[in-house]
Amino acid sequence: MIERVKVAVIGVGNNVSALVQGIALHCATGRLVGVRRPVLDGLGVGDIDFVAAFALSPEKVGKDLTEAIFVPPNNFPRLTSELPLSGVTVRRGLTGATEVERVAGELAGAEVVLYAAPSGRQETAQAYAEAALRAGAAFINITSDAVARDPQLLDRFVAAGLPLLGDDLTSQFGTSVVHHALLRLLEERGLTLISSYQVNLGGTEDFRNLVENSNTKMQSKLNALTADESAAGRVELAPLGYLPHLESHKVAHINIEAQAWGGTSVSLDLKLKVHDPSGGAGVTIDLIRIAANALRQRRAGYPAEAAPLLKSPPGTSV
Amino acid sequence: MIERVKVAVIGVGNNVSALVQGIALHCATGRLVGVRRPVLDGLGVGDIDFVAAFALSPEKVGKDLTEAIFVPPNNFPRLTSELPLSGVTVRRGLTGATEVERVAGELAGAEVVLYAAPSGRQETAQAYAEAALRAGAAFINITSDAVARDPQLLDRFVAAGLPLLGDDLTSQFGTSVVHHALLRLLEERGLTLISSYQVNLGGTEDFRNLVENSNTKMQSKLNALTADESAAGRVELAPLGYLPHLESHKVAHINIEAQAWGGTSVSLDLKLKVHDPSGGAGVTIDLIRIAANALRQRRAGYPAEAAPLLKSPPGTSV
Amino acid sequence: MIERVKVAVIGVGNNVSALVQGIALHCATGRLVGVRRPVLDGLGVGDIDFVAAFALSPEKVGKDLTEAIFVPPNNFPRLTSELPLSGVTVRRGLTGATEVERVAGELAGAEVVLYAAPSGRQETAQAYAEAALRAGAAFINITSDAVARDPQLLDRFVAAGLPLLGDDLTSQFGTSVVHHALLRLLEERGLTLISSYQVNLGGTEDFRNLVENSNTKMQSKLNALTADESAAGRVELAPLGYLPHLESHKVAHINIEAQAWGGTSVSLDLKLKVHDPSGGAGVTIDLIRIAANALRQRRAGYPAEAAPLLKSPPGTSV
Amino acid sequence: MIERVKVAVIGVGNNVSALVQGIALHCATGRLVGVRRPVLDGLGVGDIDFVAAFALSPEKVGKDLTEAIFVPPNNFPRLTSELPLSGVTVRRGLTGATEVERVAGELAGAEVVLYAAPSGRQETAQAYAEAALRAGAAFINITSDAVARDPQLLDRFVAAGLPLLGDDLTSQFGTSVVHHALLRLLEERGLTLISSYQVNLGGTEDFRNLVENSNTKMQSKLNALTADESAAGRVELAPLGYLPHLESHKVAHINIEAQAWGGTSVSLDLKLKVHDPSGGAGVTIDLIRIAANALRQRRAGYPAEAAPLLKSPPGTSV
Repeated sequence: MIERVKVAVIGVGNNVSALVQGIALHCATGRLVGVRRPVLDGLGVGDIDFVAAFALSPEKVGKDLTEAIFVPPNNFPRLTSELPLSGVTVRRGLTGATEVERVAGELAGAEVVLYAAPSGRQETAQAYAEAALRAGAAFINITSDAVARDPQLLDRFVAAGLPLLGDDLTSQFGTSVVHHALLRLLEERGLTLISSYQVNLGGTEDFRNLVENSNTKMQSKLNALTADESAAGRVELAPLGYLPHLESHKVAHINIEAQAWGGTSVSLDLKLKVHDPSGGAGVTIDLIRIAANALRQRRAGYPAEAAPLLKSPPGTSV
Repeated sequence: MIERVKVAVIGVGNNVSALVQGIALHCATGRLVGVRRPVLDGLGVGDIDFVAAFALSPEKVGKDLTEAIFVPPNNFPRLTSELPLSGVTVRRGLTGATEVERVAGELAGAEVVLYAAPSGRQETAQAYAEAALRAGAAFINITSDAVARDPQLLDRFVAAGLPLLGDDLTSQFGTSVVHHALLRLLEERGLTLISSYQVNLGGTEDFRNLVENSNTKMQSKLNALTADESAAGRVELAPLGYLPHLESHKVAHINIEAQAWGGTSVSLDLKLKVHDPSGGAGVTIDLIRIAANALRQRRAGYPAEAAPLLKSPPGTSV
Repeated sequence: MIERVKVAVIGVGNNVSALVQGIALHCATGRLVGVRRPVLDGLGVGDIDFVAAFALSPEKVGKDLTEAIFVPPNNFPRLTSELPLSGVTVRRGLTGATEVERVAGELAGAEVVLYAAPSGRQETAQAYAEAALRAGAAFINITSDAVARDPQLLDRFVAAGLPLLGDDLTSQFGTSVVHHALLRLLEERGLTLISSYQVNLGGTEDFRNLVENSNTKMQSKLNALTADESAAGRVELAPLGYLPHLESHKVAHINIEAQAWGGTSVSLDLKLKVHDPSGGAGVTIDLIRIAANALRQRRAGYPAEAAPLLKSPPGTSV
Repeated sequence: MIERVKVAVIGVGNNVSALVQGIALHCATGRLVGVRRPVLDGLGVGDIDFVAAFALSPEKVGKDLTEAIFVPPNNFPRLTSELPLSGVTVRRGLTGATEVERVAGELAGAEVVLYAAPSGRQETAQAYAEAALRAGAAFINITSDAVARDPQLLDRFVAAGLPLLGDDLTSQFGTSVVHHALLRLLEERGLTLISSYQVNLGGTEDFRNLVENSNTKMQSKLNALTADESAAGRVELAPLGYLPHLESHKVAHINIEAQAWGGTSVSLDLKLKVHDPSGGAGVTIDLIRIAANALRQRRAGYPAEAAPLLKSPPGTSV
């Protein structure tokens, strides 16, 4: 029988809430929903144990992980009324380089360290990677901070025989995925794109951060959409809208105007509504299992099979 | 320089209106929109001459082709205010087997016979195929009547060294194409389909015929949608709605309800509005060029490259 | 302190499920949602006791009312996990005129008889009205069968000093209400309506009945929409779509195409999704209180204040 | 026979383009679309002559009015291919107080001065009002700058026996009008509003200005929406999105989430697409006729019948 994966989480936000609850729900009901790979190299969705958790918010530190995930500003909904305590008490996160040693000690026993803190604190992200290195664990960075695409860090993980996965999670089924699929379909069928827009609205703390730092994000979104087609310059993004009432939902409005044979018009309007953090957890569950398998099979560095799940793998610009 | 293709059309409905006008517009402006393949084996979109046309409606017979295409119930819009006369006078179509000889004589000189009459008159369709055989022309059947998938007819075209293309046109960018692409995307990304529906509304005479004979059509639509996925039984089609105000537009409303990680909900709503006959003409323009090339290269029977453009190619059930 | 209203229900379908559960939920939580009038002439939403219930389905007869409301084909969702038994056992409904006496006896003690069986059985509806007459109770007919608009029946209620309310419930917030409001707004603002359509989809047993008997219903819907404006002939209804996956939801797609100043286009697209039976219960709760007040104040016949809540009040054609 | 109204326009943007073209189209075709009042106190839509026009852009100055309305950044479409020259040459607008006298002289003969320059230049707006005063003309301010609601200016128009209309045009059929109507309907029918949002997208230069100065505008929009209902705090506005591809279109996405009886959910999603400047012209045509009638009937000051057409009439805060 396969040994369960021991995972430490850094950051106790909506993404981790979705991950922890989704695994618990699967274990309780046996149901498998929203999962790309029920079993990945022998590891099932339920074969995961959380062994440590770190957060900065004083309201989260000291609580059991399954309680801390409901502390505001977290607003991912409670998926089940019965969520047993995890037995893992949230510890105080790292606030400076001097604490790497302390954290490395507290990571002892973890096979995989999942870095899921808010984006935008690169030094902190790298400090946790350092701690994982010292603790002999694989490291996954799902934020957009540069960790796996920092060549020196990657070299050190390779030298230590440890896997390093990152950076920045692709969404399982978000606006870009759908918009891109429709633009590609249009092209395949020989229609001529006239114009297209995308409106993104959300209500989580993560989305609020995104809104405040949206310039680079928006451009990268546009690039992703129009990379492989003649669509460049024909797709526009409306400014991101932080609407607290949406809570953990994300809503997108997509419009595509095109021309078919004879120049006649084709209009497509789409509304997509998802639970923002669920898409992330649905991808993270695969990354954790890839990391654990790589570690156990002693495959060091960046595992190629993680590529479709990450936006900025090693080799992309920082 | 390439020789222009000589085409005879059977039926002067909205599809032929879109085809004739789109070619004229392209020739006048040089613009290429809604075209999958600008040049196909040497043949451009404008390299087509209409040399004969047949219709049953007394209001169409005797008129120039470019006038007959605007006779009601045709309601495809006028794409350009300047459409020169074609010089082709619409002749009286075939009403019984005894007229095959007459029509075969009138098809003399045509390389490709395009059968675009209303669906549902299989004997007539086969009589025209017979006439094309005698006239030594390639035959394209874009209706759902069984012509190319009638093994005996296909054998006779093979024996005569003539191409036979059909049956039933795929749409260039219709509801099924978009709905299917989204369901497939959902599956690829690991989401669990809960339910989905599709509403189809249209305002052409063809659409009205469809509404009145919708049972088999609906089932075949459903089959196409759910063939390659676990979606069977989860997709529902609302009854087709003939709404005259839509004129030559077709409107679809698609809804998809799914579950992502943790069972959280994903909702997608889409409205698609197209000019119904344009999609058909955008595919027919490729079939005509494939047929002409096959004839000139003496490739008899069903040309494999036509397969992606047809719903019921030879070998499918009648 | 006000005396609670004693209500008997005929029919134990989705509408009654919504009514019973909504009252219980209000009593348990004190919350007031979706209610037009928290207190109506002294009667609150919670001042209602169910004292008898009748149904035809053998699966419902003999069960407690709060259990029978969940028996299929009922599919209105369970609003609360804690719904105490009502103490009312569902009795066998009337199947012929000979049973009027029996039912009248079983209605003893009821102040208000709510007739909420499936539409389309006028004789049965009138037999229950007869039983209510004999039992000395007010009668409410929320179906489209002619009861209150039968002049002879109304005369007999007047003679007996009893209120009679009906026929056919208006919806609280349905497609017609919204569509009509938008068409009226358009007219008020001076826009010119070009065309409009409405698609209605539903998943309840009541909706299925409607689909099968939709001809008259559709025409009456159209009349209601276009009565007071120049819209006649510009609004089209797509055929009703029974989609079981929708369960107790009703979905409508509305499109309005208009012209503003200079003939420029105005397009409006709307999707409305509601729980079908909730709208009915939100209106029924007012009718019950109007009926009880009228009875207690000895106002016989049709109480004028019920008019905005009914589609076919006395005086309309049968 | 009624005497035609002599109108001078200040600013030659999209609004004036829509106005000029719409009147010409009506005169040429006799058609009346998007007009609230075909005849207003004897004045028809076509009873208007433009006698002077002022602009700042060097590309517009010196051109005939019917040519200047198509100079970029104007992007309102050409409504008719045949638009006769107006005979009015666009003059150089006022750039400082010293030019009031010059402009007053050039306004000689105008009965109504329509101020339709970009919002945000209050001194300029008031200088034009001054020039109109000296020229003995009625003045209409459709911008949000304070003119009619400046008590001193209003007093001077009253003293001079001249009408003064303003400030800030209501839209004929815009997002706020529709959103407000739906929220009011919801309340009337007893539903409980849970949350609502509005997304506004546009492509005109005016819209771009709005985006850059959106803070106050957004708050005033919110106030207007939620003034008369318990909706305050439940309606959110996404940031305005300037999308050049939309050209002169304005697009809004509105969502309303509510609860009906029993707390069941009601969802309404709406997309509205209009030609931005058309709505303005459809209201301006009424203001011009009100102003002319007031002038001719020697009614000085603010004519009460203009109130429903203006957002900030005299008495509202500056």
